[in-house]
Amino acid sequence: MAKLTSRGQDYSKWYNELVVKADLAENSQVRGCMVIKPYGYAIWEKMRDELDRMFKETGHQNAYFPLFVPKSLFEAEEQNAEGFAKECAVVTHYRLKTDPNNPQKLIVDPDAKLEEELIVRPTSEAIIWSTYKNWIQSYRDLPILINQWANVVRWEMRTRLFLRTTEFLWQEGHTAHATREEALEETEKMLEVYATFAENHMAMPVIRGIKTPTERFAGAEETYCIEALMQDGKALQAGTSHFLGQNFSKAFDVKFTSREGKIEYPWATSWGVSTRLMGALIMAHSDDFGLVLPPTLAPIQVVIVPIFKGEEQLENIRTVATEIQQKLKAKNISVKFDDDDQNKPGWKFAEYELKGVPVRIAMGARDLENRTVEVARRDTLTKEVQPLENLDIYIEELLKTIQKDIYNRALEFKNNNITKVETFEEFQKVLEEKGGFISAHWDGSAEEEEEIKNLTKATIRCIPLDAEEEAGVSLISGKPSARRVIFAKAY
Amino acid sequence: MAKLTSRGQDYSKWYNELVVKADLAENSQVRGCMVIKPYGYAIWEKMRDELDRMFKETGHQNAYFPLFVPKSLFEAEEQNAEGFAKECAVVTHYRLKTDPNNPQKLIVDPDAKLEEELIVRPTSEAIIWSTYKNWIQSYRDLPILINQWANVVRWEMRTRLFLRTTEFLWQEGHTAHATREEALEETEKMLEVYATFAENHMAMPVIRGIKTPTERFAGAEETYCIEALMQDGKALQAGTSHFLGQNFSKAFDVKFTSREGKIEYPWATSWGVSTRLMGALIMAHSDDFGLVLPPTLAPIQVVIVPIFKGEEQLENIRTVATEIQQKLKAKNISVKFDDDDQNKPGWKFAEYELKGVPVRIAMGARDLENRTVEVARRDTLTKEVQPLENLDIYIEELLKTIQKDIYNRALEFKNNNITKVETFEEFQKVLEEKGGFISAHWDGSAEEEEEIKNLTKATIRCIPLDAEEEAGVSLISGKPSARRVIFAKAY
Repeated sequence: MAKLTSRGQDYSKWYNELVVKADLAENSQVRGCMVIKPYGYAIWEKMRDELDRMFKETGHQNAYFPLFVPKSLFEAEEQNAEGFAKECAVVTHYRLKTDPNNPQKLIVDPDAKLEEELIVRPTSEAIIWSTYKNWIQSYRDLPILINQWANVVRWEMRTRLFLRTTEFLWQEGHTAHATREEALEETEKMLEVYATFAENHMAMPVIRGIKTPTERFAGAEETYCIEALMQDGKALQAGTSHFLGQNFSKAFDVKFTSREGKIEYPWATSWGVSTRLMGALIMAHSDDFGLVLPPTLAPIQVVIVPIFKGEEQLENIRTVATEIQQKLKAKNISVKFDDDDQNKPGWKFAEYELKGVPVRIAMGARDLENRTVEVARRDTLTKEVQPLENLDIYIEELLKTIQKDIYNRALEFKNNNITKVETFEEFQKVLEEKGGFISAHWDGSAEEEEEIKNLTKATIRCIPLDAEEEAGVSLISGKPSARRVIFAKAY
Repeated sequence: MAKLTSRGQDYSKWYNELVVKADLAENSQVRGCMVIKPYGYAIWEKMRDELDRMFKETGHQNAYFPLFVPKSLFEAEEQNAEGFAKECAVVTHYRLKTDPNNPQKLIVDPDAKLEEELIVRPTSEAIIWSTYKNWIQSYRDLPILINQWANVVRWEMRTRLFLRTTEFLWQEGHTAHATREEALEETEKMLEVYATFAENHMAMPVIRGIKTPTERFAGAEETYCIEALMQDGKALQAGTSHFLGQNFSKAFDVKFTSREGKIEYPWATSWGVSTRLMGALIMAHSDDFGLVLPPTLAPIQVVIVPIFKGEEQLENIRTVATEIQQKLKAKNISVKFDDDDQNKPGWKFAEYELKGVPVRIAMGARDLENRTVEVARRDTLTKEVQPLENLDIYIEELLKTIQKDIYNRALEFKNNNITKVETFEEFQKVLEEKGGFISAHWDGSAEEEEEIKNLTKATIRCIPLDAEEEAGVSLISGKPSARRVIFAKAY
């Protein structure tokens, strides 16, 4: 197995190689679209199941809305339409026919042109709010708290596996509320669900914040986000929660009779995370040997590798391994016994390191005699000998420790990579030499934001929710600023 | 709440009304596409979760392949392409732009025409087998046992909620094997998974069989199916499992080196069930009062309706109801306490009958005194008084009984509606007067099959797997036949 390019050598190449070699995903024959392979999909399923549980726990229900958005609905909310029109897949025909010039080939049947073109959903506000029109008449119909797991398509020019693909999988929550306050509360609640998920399950600390107007979702009044830091010092937007105000209810003429008998427009939110989180997970923790997965998201949490000569040794090891497996499974720990005789233990060690299996148990003839095993941690690459007795309890605790340690390392890295700067010179120096999040004053104008972006490629990732009031002067214009914002180069 | 049209009056109207009134689904603003509403989606989720469990138990893994199929891949397997070309959505452009004549409107940007059109997948054999080409080199890469949960699009001219929609949700398994025998075994195994699911979870008995060549999946060498009987005497194909032979491996030039060192083409299967199963579930069991759901698939298995005057009575009932809830939840039974004070108990009774909640518990002041409750079964519409003591154990058993009884009623109905006929006259008479499955001899020709279809609209649903050898003469041609096949009018 050829080694991965190291992160130090070429971070971007390391990422691309890792995604493919760890069997997570690959490019398909369709421009910009990926194939999510079984191992990658198993990780995504674990993310999805946990998020789904959290959405249901906070009162949301799943539903499913059409893949297609008729053009007239698509264009109803102007900002949203403008934001997505430039990168959408358009269905214009509903039939192919045999090419009269070549009976082996098919051509688009010109007689099957649609009266109205259909847009493959890049996001579903339009189709969903045109549906809500029939569902909402009275305050008693509110709130509507719906989520959908779906595929969406955005015609991106430059794509990268998981991080930016033409088609991706995501969930999109779409809620409707009787009051502005309630919708704002929902927007913030779902941001916190995302942040909790990122931190507790992905072991990935995030900054919670608000986007500047320039970086807002097309059609939103306010976009909340969580921003994570990758090991190369670049930021990654890991989830967004939008307060949509009454933009969509007005665009689709959705009204309700309030408790007081007045006709009002409901208030909306939408929020989403996507398979992009896979990219974040990979880049936040992995190393030059391969994936490092937090135990909560690892499809295989423990692998048992027998070290044997001949059938008899293998059978003796198998007896003990089966016992271990049963005990671990009883604790809801997923475990694999790899008795494949075509690959050597060394090959298997490297393979499971590449795949990010959190704990490896190796067992040889001497271990059997001593009633011990060798336990290796993927995250620290350390090994130790442990007695067979109470091994299940030891492993259960070890997985918790690993989860915590992975998070703490990422947290330390993040904390060490938030740099306060006062001048634009300092800003440029930190950005070039160190990267990471830069905390600086900003005058609040789109002009300064734009200028900094043009000069450095760094953008304002967010105005942190916990930003303290602090008088300062902005980096370029020198105008007064009341709080710091977070800049970074980003994925 | 207006009553449903009765089944006797107009079965088709009854179905359409029931789907909408029970909040399962509705037509969207996109031609032929449906919105699956939260209650309907919750039932689909239960089906999906159980099927997914069964797939994984039989060694399959999930993955995800692109939504789009480039035209050149689509046309590679000729039969398959021909089968789906007439009803597929075609993406021809990747951008909209502002209409120069009307800045409020968007038009397709003629400068953004795709070099090669993309077909929205009607099924994924083409895209998946073009991917497998890179995954399969040696017999050691086989078998590949992959399933995908996805949306697909077929441009149907006449659509009906769940039964036939332009976009639908489904799963599609796509497997590759080293030998013909192994692929055939997989085809049959997955048919049995579907049959078991239909019978044990949907409480819907099915006939397992093989399709005639005319009714085969486009590109298959053999199509296995399960056929269910609806209450109006029409059949519904509930799942198919295809033996694809080497058609796709040859079309996409997928080869492997066998254990003996020979270059060979792998053998393929594909198998799928879709949201159509929702239609089958509804039509198999429901009645003029609404849905009848088997407990295994009911999002709410038990509803507790308090019958009270004033807050104090409600609070007393709530105390007891909470206890019942906790005990039932501990047994993994989903239960809802409906304390809404805007609707009367009678309204709620009708509502939960419409929604198919299997068990209703009603509690009033007198029940509290007597330490009893009234327990009503949805399937039989019967009621009885039960002591509070050990109610959870009673309900747990009752749910099992209901599951069994629903299945047995459907089985009895099916068995009473398989009619053996010997002549075409008899065939026509039974079809007109009774409907159902008709078991008759057929000469094995596409001509006779076609003639019967043209004369009666009945098709051969399948050649049952358990059909016994029995000499006979076919209905129209009078030619000899070795076994009976199953005819019916079908959805």
